[in-house]
This record gives sequence, C-alpha cells and structure tokens, in this order.
Amino acid sequence: MRVPISILTDFGYDDEFVGVVHGVIARIAPSVRVLDITHGIARGDIHGGAMALTRAVQFMPDGVFLAVVDPGVGTDRRAIAARTPIGHFVGPDNGLLAPAVAMVGGADLIVSLEDERFRLPVSGATFDGRDVFGPAAAVLADEQADIADLGPVLDPDSITPLLIPLAEPAGNGAIKASVLWVDTYGNAQLNVSAEDLNSLGLEMGDDVLVGASMRETTISWQVSFGSVDEGQPVVHVDSHGQIALAVRGGRADEHLEISVGDSVIIGRPDGGNRIDLTIVGS
Amino acid sequence: MRVPISILTDFGYDDEFVGVVHGVIARIAPSVRVLDITHGIARGDIHGGAMALTRAVQFMPDGVFLAVVDPGVGTDRRAIAARTPIGHFVGPDNGLLAPAVAMVGGADLIVSLEDERFRLPVSGATFDGRDVFGPAAAVLADEQADIADLGPVLDPDSITPLLIPLAEPAGNGAIKASVLWVDTYGNAQLNVSAEDLNSLGLEMGDDVLVGASMRETTISWQVSFGSVDEGQPVVHVDSHGQIALAVRGGRADEHLEISVGDSVIIGRPDGGNRIDLTIVGS
Amino acid sequence: MRVPISILTDFGYDDEFVGVVHGVIARIAPSVRVLDITHGIARGDIHGGAMALTRAVQFMPDGVFLAVVDPGVGTDRRAIAARTPIGHFVGPDNGLLAPAVAMVGGADLIVSLEDERFRLPVSGATFDGRDVFGPAAAVLADEQADIADLGPVLDPDSITPLLIPLAEPAGNGAIKASVLWVDTYGNAQLNVSAEDLNSLGLEMGDDVLVGASMRETTISWQVSFGSVDEGQPVVHVDSHGQIALAVRGGRADEHLEISVGDSVIIGRPDGGNRIDLTIVGS
Repeated sequence: MRVPISILTDFGYDDEFVGVVHGVIARIAPSVRVLDITHGIARGDIHGGAMALTRAVQFMPDGVFLAVVDPGVGTDRRAIAARTPIGHFVGPDNGLLAPAVAMVGGADLIVSLEDERFRLPVSGATFDGRDVFGPAAAVLADEQADIADLGPVLDPDSITPLLIPLAEPAGNGAIKASVLWVDTYGNAQLNVSAEDLNSLGLEMGDDVLVGASMRETTISWQVSFGSVDEGQPVVHVDSHGQIALAVRGGRADEHLEISVGDSVIIGRPDGGNRIDLTIVGS
Repeated sequence: MRVPISILTDFGYDDEFVGVVHGVIARIAPSVRVLDITHGIARGDIHGGAMALTRAVQFMPDGVFLAVVDPGVGTDRRAIAARTPIGHFVGPDNGLLAPAVAMVGGADLIVSLEDERFRLPVSGATFDGRDVFGPAAAVLADEQADIADLGPVLDPDSITPLLIPLAEPAGNGAIKASVLWVDTYGNAQLNVSAEDLNSLGLEMGDDVLVGASMRETTISWQVSFGSVDEGQPVVHVDSHGQIALAVRGGRADEHLEISVGDSVIIGRPDGGNRIDLTIVGS
Repeated sequence: MRVPISILTDFGYDDEFVGVVHGVIARIAPSVRVLDITHGIARGDIHGGAMALTRAVQFMPDGVFLAVVDPGVGTDRRAIAARTPIGHFVGPDNGLLAPAVAMVGGADLIVSLEDERFRLPVSGATFDGRDVFGPAAAVLADEQADIADLGPVLDPDSITPLLIPLAEPAGNGAIKASVLWVDTYGNAQLNVSAEDLNSLGLEMGDDVLVGASMRETTISWQVSFGSVDEGQPVVHVDSHGQIALAVRGGRADEHLEISVGDSVIIGRPDGGNRIDLTIVGS
C-alpha cells in the first residue's frame, strides 16, 4: 500500500534544498503524497529536531517519516531506515530519530542505507537528503523496495540514542526540571507533567512561585491563558500534556528570561499551597 | 463533493505547527487537497491576517477556508464555522474571518464548534488549529459532516466584525486615507481607489505631492513602476485595484518612512492638477 | 499528458503571494500537482534565482518550471514561455530563465505571453506571477493550450542571457575564480570544478593556501567535512560537483569572511603541492 511521506529538516526556506528533495521523491514515486512537518529547525539542532519530530509524529498519517538534521553529513555517521509499528523512519543515525521511534513503539528492523541502487549517482558527499534519504523514503513509501533491500541489517538496539533531560529530585521534595522547548510564540515547555506537579501536592488553581537569582514572580496554575489578565504569566498544561509557562498576549521567554535547556527548580518550601519554581539557567 | 482546504495562519515556519495541522487533516480526510495561503502573518496580528485572507480568497478555489490567527486561544472567544456562497470558513471568531466572509457574500449559517465528535480528544486548550479547526475543516471539505452537525447554530449576524479604516473627508475637498498593508517588497497599499482620486479631480499622469512633517516629495501617478526611473517613487493602482505607493527597484516603506496604520491626507490645495498626499503617522 | 509545475520565486513567506499563485493554478487546473522549489530567493535577486533554478532543475520532475524574480514587473520587459526538452519554462525574460534553459538543452520555441485569454482580467500591472505566469503555467501543465497559443512567437535566440562569471587565467598558471553561492549553512561554492584544480596540478589530499589581504589559512582538499576536525575548514567537491569552501560544524562564510561575488585567486606559487587561494573581494 502506498503511504505518505512526512518530512522534517533544518534546510530552511532560503535555498532550493526542500524543493529538490520533493523533486527527487516525485521523480521516483510520482503518486506518493508528501507532507512537510517543518523545515525551520535551527541549523544543526539535532535535539530541537528530535523534539519536534516526537511531538508531531502522532498527528501525521502513518507512513514514512523522513528527518534530516545532519551536521555530520560527510562523516562516518550511519544513514539508516528503521521499521516501526506506524511505518518507516529514514534519516541520519545521530539521535534525531531515536525519541520518535521509541515513542511509537520502537524499531524491529534497522538497515544502513548503503545499497547504491537506491542512492542518486551524483557528485559530492554532502547532500544526503537528496541523494540517500529522499530516494530511500520514496521507494519505501511507494513499496518499490522492502527495507531489507536498502542495505545491511543492523542491530535494532544500536540506533544512536538522544539524551532527553528528565526531571529529577532536588531535595526537600522539590524537583529539578528543564525547559524542553520554546515555541514561536514564546511559550516554554517543561519536562514535567500535571501528575508531576500533583505529586508535589500542587493542584490546578494553586500559585507557583517562579524565581530566578534576581527576580521572583508568583504565577497561578490555570487551565489556560483565558484565566489570567492580558500580559500576565500562567502555568498551564500545554497542547502536549506538558507543563508550560506562558504569558497571555505576550512571550514567556522574554517575560521570564528563560531559554531551552534552562533548569527550573519546582519546590514547596513552606508546605502550603504554593511551590517555588526557580529558573537556574542552563 | 470533496473540496480543497486553503489555510492561512500566523504559525510561522519554525515549529511543527503547520505540518501537524496538515497531518490532522490528512488523517481525517486523506483525499482532500490542502493549499497554504501563508503561515507568515505576524504573530497575533488579526488585522493583517484578515486583510491577507480577504485579498487571497477570490483567487483560491472554492472550498473550505481555514484561518487561524488566534491570540485569544484558551479564552472564551468562540470557535466557529460559517457557510458562504463559496464554501465554509473555519476559525476563531475574533474578527479574522469577518471581512473575507462579507466580501464573498456573507454567511447564511454560523455554528459554534463544540461537538466533541469533531474535536481531537487531547490535552491542553491552546492548540485549537490542531484540535478544533483542523478537524472541522477536514470533515467539511470531505463532506463527512454537515456544518450543522459541528455544534450549536449561532445568529449569522453575530460574527465578530473587524474595524477596517475607511477613507474619510478631511475638509477642503481632501480625504484622509490610511495605509492598509505594506508588502514584503515595501509597497504601501492605501484604502483608496482610483475612483476616489478621480473624485478629487486627479487623473493618471498627474503629480501628487506626498508630504510629511519634515519632508515632501512629488510623485507621479502612473500605470506602474515602468513609467518612472530606477529608484523613483510612483503612485499606482496595485494588483488589488487599490492606490499604492511604490518605488521602482526600491522600498516605498523606507523611502517614504510609512507603516501600516499611518494616516495619509490627500488634498488639492491649489486647485491645479497637483494634490497633496500628507503622511500624518498613525 | 498532464505534468507537474515546479515553482521558484522571491515572494517570501510573509504575504499571501505564494498561496495566491497556487490558488490561481488550482482554479484553472485542479488536477495539476505543484511543487515549490523555493520562495526564499532574495528580493529581486535575479542572479541568485537563476543559479538556484539551474541547480534544482535536474532534480525536479519534467514538466513546467514557473520562475518569478521580477524586479522589472510593470516595465516593458517581456513575459515569456520557452519550450525545452524537459518541458516549459515560464517567467520574466530578464535572465532568470536563461541558464537553466541552456543547461537542459536550450529552447526551440519562445513566445511572448500576450494573449488575453490566458491572463487574469484584473486590476493593476504589478503581480504577473498571479495574472500572467501562473495562468500560463497552469494551461501548459494541463495541456489546455499549446505554447504557441499563448502569444506571438519570438526568436528563440532572443532570450535575455545572464552573465555567469567564469573562472579565468590569472597569470603564472593561476586562475581567478569567484563565489557563486553561499548556502544557508554558510558553505561557499566556487565556479571551478575538481578538473580545474587538477589542471593546476592539485589533487585531493593536497593543501590549499587560502589567503586574503590580512589573513591566510591553509585548507586541505578532502572528500568532505568528515576528514577534518570540528571547526576546521575544508575544500571539497560539493553536491553539485563544484569546488566549495566549508567548515565542519561551522560557517565558511563567517570563518573566511567571503560572500557571493568575491573573487578568489587559486595559484601554485612555489610549484609544490600547495596552491594559494586568495580571496580578493568582489
């Protein structure tokens, strides 16, 4: 059965890179549909690409997932395809694919994309999106080849993992979380869930003291922006079920001066219905 | 009959938001075609989004128009679908849809998108493009549901309007116009037509004095850039039939220091074939 | 036979221009597939657009190539369609199309897009992408018209050429090359091939002295980034078979302070296995 291809890259929108990958796929598999997840991942940001792929994958149609954030192109990092319960993942084996593959149930087969029949016979060694990954995605989506045709089978457990920071105990019942993502609107997603906050004794409606070295502010945990006034910050469960910091009509990243990777201590020093959320910096 | 969906948002191109909305639609209605009008509306700029949608709508295929510029997501603003002569409009009821709906002939039916069967059962309340608007657009485009199935019917006249500035008399036969749009090339569109200038006694070929507090320049009304020298400004009828200020091979916004919302007085102080166009500032 | 349309423009992603061209095509030819090469060409950069189109065209499916970088819209520059061995090229006759047309084998028929039946009957003269080029591409891709229907036939040799700088002898066996392109990752492509360097007596593995007035650095010619350490520059054959300067994990444009149009002297002053590559500036 022919399936769609969903693509995520750091190619940006200035050059013809995205179009060329679409072109390569269209030449090989003209009837395959291609969806763009995004091509705006920061250049070379494997972590950001992996997070975006992981967030997106459950909302895309089953099929082939082609992801290219590949600062190691032209080195000896492996180029792989992985078979999972929802379809095939294709990309560099640099950690980019691992979290999404794990989230959808893991891979039962991984191959190294070495078979020359499924690579473009071109000059250079620096555009594997066009020459290696695009063709592999196209033949898989169009069922022109089985994944096992594409190259030597690898140990499925050998996929390069990505270190995703987990929240951890910080003493006195507090936890140390970190900022996983700041989106285009300035919302800052943490690596904690509502359950994590509940386990600290916090319930929606409670106040959270968000503090950093030089500044402190009390923020209420609410269902959404709508429960606070314009310009005010809020702690809420975001659209991925994670705790996030936001500002109604504003940007939490600027308001709270936080960035991806910053640590945030969430504690409950006085035992009351207030916890401290301290931005430590990365 | 299955129809295409045309999408306009302020999601930008950095995150996976656009791709996820495409994914949600593809999962619900795999055969529906989706066209992207733009996702580059300035964050939260309802007015800019409404203007772009209004300019674009007549050139898109009849079908579903999905527009999301939604700074009020997570508040109690309504999520609506509107039935019009050219198809359905879906989006937040914050003024974004009103001018385009009016331009295509108005809505004879509006519903509030509340039926849980047509919303994604997900966490959070802050990504209605994915959870509410995308699914509604998909089922309407694919005729899996009638608009009346999607939620309670609202008064069609209750759609939230958007204030679009109209040119108005400014005394002595002059009119006070304003800058509706500055495009990516720096061209500045005014809310006056050729007929409006004709009514002031101005004809194509006449000179227009464009002045502001500290600077004045005479600009000729011509059919297009081609009638003036490189680097020179021109008044012309733009591709939407509106009077616009442009600079051949340059940017009118920089050359004339004008921005969206600036007021412009167009008068004819000496009764001759010259009028004054004064940039007042917003 | 219905064929796809591949589009390249400088419309950017902020306005609705790209979407409107898609819409116009979809209204005229609903079953034609449209691929976006890129819309991120720098505003009005005919040279950059022509280079990107030339690089991309061989990877796109045969069909119609619609390219619009058109600072002369509204002047008397011609609007053309050209028939080539791989399909039709449509766009302004300002040099944008010529290199790609030449690369695919030249045009045997060129017409001026003047027939009003295939133009949108709209106001203004400044959006030919929407009003002239989009409709022409749509009817050609959908075989609703033959190219000869679209307007008066022109001399095929009259297509406006684009001056692409060629490497030239610089005395003492050296050559003077120039930077054709700096991509989004900062890689700088030169207008010389591996064969050109071989003709200077240089082989892969040799060192190249890259120098400019105030700075000099020795760079090794290697197969790719992978042969040098993180942060180090490398000379390599890029994905288009051209010699390029790159930095592993970095940006060559910043590291070497080079830009599009800069001249680069590549010589071999000491007759040994070292050549000098001197950045002269544009």
